Amino acid sequence: MNYRYSLQIVGRIMTVTAGLILLPALVSVIYGDGNVHCFIITALILLALGMLSTLIKATDKNIYAREGFLIVALSWVVISLFGALPYVLSGEIPSYIDAYFETVSGFTTTGATILTDVESMSHSMLFWRSFTNWIGGMGVLVFAFAILSQSGTRIVHIIRAEAPGPGFGKLVSKTKINLQILYGIYIALSVIEFILLVCGGMPVFDAVVNTFGTAGTGGFAIKNASIAAYNSAYVDYVVGIFMVLFGINFNLYFLLLMLRLGDVFRSEELRWYFGIIVFSTVTIAANIYPIYKTVGDSMRYAFFQVVSFISTTGYTATDYNHWPAYSHTVLITLFFIGACVGSTGCGFKVMRVIIMLKTAFKEIRFSLNPRSVSTIMFDKKPVDRSVVTGVGSYVIAFTIIFFASVLIVSAGGLDFASNTTAVLVCLNNLGIGVAGAQTNFPSMSVLSKLVLCFDMLVGRLEIFPMLILFTPAAWRK
Amino acid sequence: MNYRYSLQIVGRIMTVTAGLILLPALVSVIYGDGNVHCFIITALILLALGMLSTLIKATDKNIYAREGFLIVALSWVVISLFGALPYVLSGEIPSYIDAYFETVSGFTTTGATILTDVESMSHSMLFWRSFTNWIGGMGVLVFAFAILSQSGTRIVHIIRAEAPGPGFGKLVSKTKINLQILYGIYIALSVIEFILLVCGGMPVFDAVVNTFGTAGTGGFAIKNASIAAYNSAYVDYVVGIFMVLFGINFNLYFLLLMLRLGDVFRSEELRWYFGIIVFSTVTIAANIYPIYKTVGDSMRYAFFQVVSFISTTGYTATDYNHWPAYSHTVLITLFFIGACVGSTGCGFKVMRVIIMLKTAFKEIRFSLNPRSVSTIMFDKKPVDRSVVTGVGSYVIAFTIIFFASVLIVSAGGLDFASNTTAVLVCLNNLGIGVAGAQTNFPSMSVLSKLVLCFDMLVGRLEIFPMLILFTPAAWRK
Repeated sequence: MNYRYSLQIVGRIMTVTAGLILLPALVSVIYGDGNVHCFIITALILLALGMLSTLIKATDKNIYAREGFLIVALSWVVISLFGALPYVLSGEIPSYIDAYFETVSGFTTTGATILTDVESMSHSMLFWRSFTNWIGGMGVLVFAFAILSQSGTRIVHIIRAEAPGPGFGKLVSKTKINLQILYGIYIALSVIEFILLVCGGMPVFDAVVNTFGTAGTGGFAIKNASIAAYNSAYVDYVVGIFMVLFGINFNLYFLLLMLRLGDVFRSEELRWYFGIIVFSTVTIAANIYPIYKTVGDSMRYAFFQVVSFISTTGYTATDYNHWPAYSHTVLITLFFIGACVGSTGCGFKVMRVIIMLKTAFKEIRFSLNPRSVSTIMFDKKPVDRSVVTGVGSYVIAFTIIFFASVLIVSAGGLDFASNTTAVLVCLNNLGIGVAGAQTNFPSMSVLSKLVLCFDMLVGRLEIFPMLILFTPAAWRK
Repeated sequence: MNYRYSLQIVGRIMTVTAGLILLPALVSVIYGDGNVHCFIITALILLALGMLSTLIKATDKNIYAREGFLIVALSWVVISLFGALPYVLSGEIPSYIDAYFETVSGFTTTGATILTDVESMSHSMLFWRSFTNWIGGMGVLVFAFAILSQSGTRIVHIIRAEAPGPGFGKLVSKTKINLQILYGIYIALSVIEFILLVCGGMPVFDAVVNTFGTAGTGGFAIKNASIAAYNSAYVDYVVGIFMVLFGINFNLYFLLLMLRLGDVFRSEELRWYFGIIVFSTVTIAANIYPIYKTVGDSMRYAFFQVVSFISTTGYTATDYNHWPAYSHTVLITLFFIGACVGSTGCGFKVMRVIIMLKTAFKEIRFSLNPRSVSTIMFDKKPVDRSVVTGVGSYVIAFTIIFFASVLIVSAGGLDFASNTTAVLVCLNNLGIGVAGAQTNFPSMSVLSKLVLCFDMLVGRLEIFPMLILFTPAAWRK
């Protein structure tokens, strides 16, 4: 394990974060809410530590898979540790553990909150909170390497650890140029959503933070009623459509820019993604029609909640807790499925689900006829065996972490349904409860909050980078 | 697909079932409850159909894996169809779908019931109900081949389909002699439990049916309060210890008979099984101590519910619905884990869980060092790759069936928690709710009951045999 160079890179990430934290400082100046010092102090601490890390002598600049995992896991833990400081310094979230929970929830784009009255927060804190959603959506390391010069190091191992998944793109993310294009697409889509929201009459500040929440599929809202507070079909549809767009594999936008439309439309994952959204929206709309009485409202709310769940954003446009059981079941299934690989969304990912389904059918064929040699096809190409076993291991690791987390959280005293829901929404980075079960984050114990922070990081980084921190073997030289 | 010979074997199973059904007829005569004709009529129908099947000309007597799956799936569906008749004929369960649900629940050793007042049933019906638990525990086909002459046919494919699992024993179940020894052990253990219960003062009839429920790990009770009705620490411990014993791989009893004690104690699965039971009992006892106030009662109830859940029996000795969240979480984890491979218990099986854990750790090692070639070891022998992928496929298929079932059941109108609990306890053949969530079987729709019947069969036959019924490819000649 190349500790020295790994720590140096983590230090560089801290320096980048110091720069990013100046943006909410600026917001604080604009609104004069008196929190400038909170962000400046945090930025200075991050900068000082970042500078210190350059003193580490690292002659060996080789980075392999496990260094990649370590760098990503450490970076996410560390920037959350410092990203929580402004909340505490301002006194708006007095408890450090609560502030840490809120920051991890922001960076991992979960959107779970310990705040009981978000509307009482200052502008700069709300901005910082939603900004963590936006940074976390594409990944803080992807951003860092897009702006830093890293010729000579194998950043592919780091990027792969932060943005994993079976469909790790061949097109993007291997070179600095590609990372810049990736971020360019991300920024462009965000700007378009912002403009559309402002055109619809939303205040500028609200449009900025809601765009952050949509783009990162984080779902941090600045109203207690979430998007429902705007009570506007236009806003619901704009935010809804952008939740769909940010849930698509960014490689496809890359192909779109290169005018390779054929490749885009042939994407098996994209067709399933749209198919699932259409099927779920139509059946839920029919299911909730007796509640809303009009086709328009039924479709609007069904569409919004469907895309909010499948993209694991967690915005709400209506009180869906009173919907019938069928709708709840579909919504819960959707947040397990999650968005597309290579998007800002979380969950299992549509591609993994397709591979799971194909594996199950292959297994049936195989047990009927053991001599059948059936290969699993995806996008008309055979899927590598390692991808299939990878999906299996992912499910197994997810299951184990789920049970272990519920077990520890259950020591906190809340009832079983609340604990299970809390762990599931954190592991899938959704952040809100469903089916009447509350995700009662504010009242949870410190231990429970720490476990849920771990679960959110596990969900966002797709399990394995976080596990390295608990694997003694990995720490050997 | 060799239909003719497969149907002939299913016919033979029906003939055997006709014989078995004479036992409750005898009970009816003894207690004079006027239900003799219900069993006689059913037996005659089964016998007639069984005789008819011998008219099928089957010259080709080759049986392969898919014929094995088909025979097992069809046999279980068919004997449940006819096993439901006595309930309907006697009028004690007027609805045929309810009677079918009760019979499937019995044969699959689930123990879920549509009865709201079990104590109002006649002796013969209660006997038949519990007897299905006992027959289903070891498997009706295992029984049939233990008594029928089947030289010349490859019964291994049939037995493998009915009693699958990664640890399909090399010792037992391949020859008629071994099947007889297997059933001999099953009967011997049952007789010992019966004697111990009678010695403890339990009425003979109660001792018989409770032994049936324990042996098959089915858990059908004849008191509304289940085992709690006897209010006896002695009964709780006897039933508890036998739930543990019936959850052990029967191959180990075979080894015990051959005095190969070393092999028994070296069994990795057995050590984990005991380890899990001890850990769960001690921690739950500590967790519920404030409720029961004495170490004795805490240990007694913790032990009973722990072994009831891990063996997927579902007997209750106390109202555990008011236990704290930690206890509920452990209990729910236990019924997912399930008993040992090759036992009468259901669930994922301890061995699959061990292989899952080892796979997850191997995957972590592999992602840290892609050149590491680590083989998974079990019982100090390398595990075949096909076993590992088999476990992965099992988890995937289980997940898919779970979501699909909840989706269909949710159309029935009950709330999400009830639907999820009902599907989970049926898939794991447990039969009772937990954590305050009710398994409201009597009030469910016909469609929901059919889905749950399918789930119980899927759980008992370990998924794949049941899927063959829905695989058109398998039906081709």
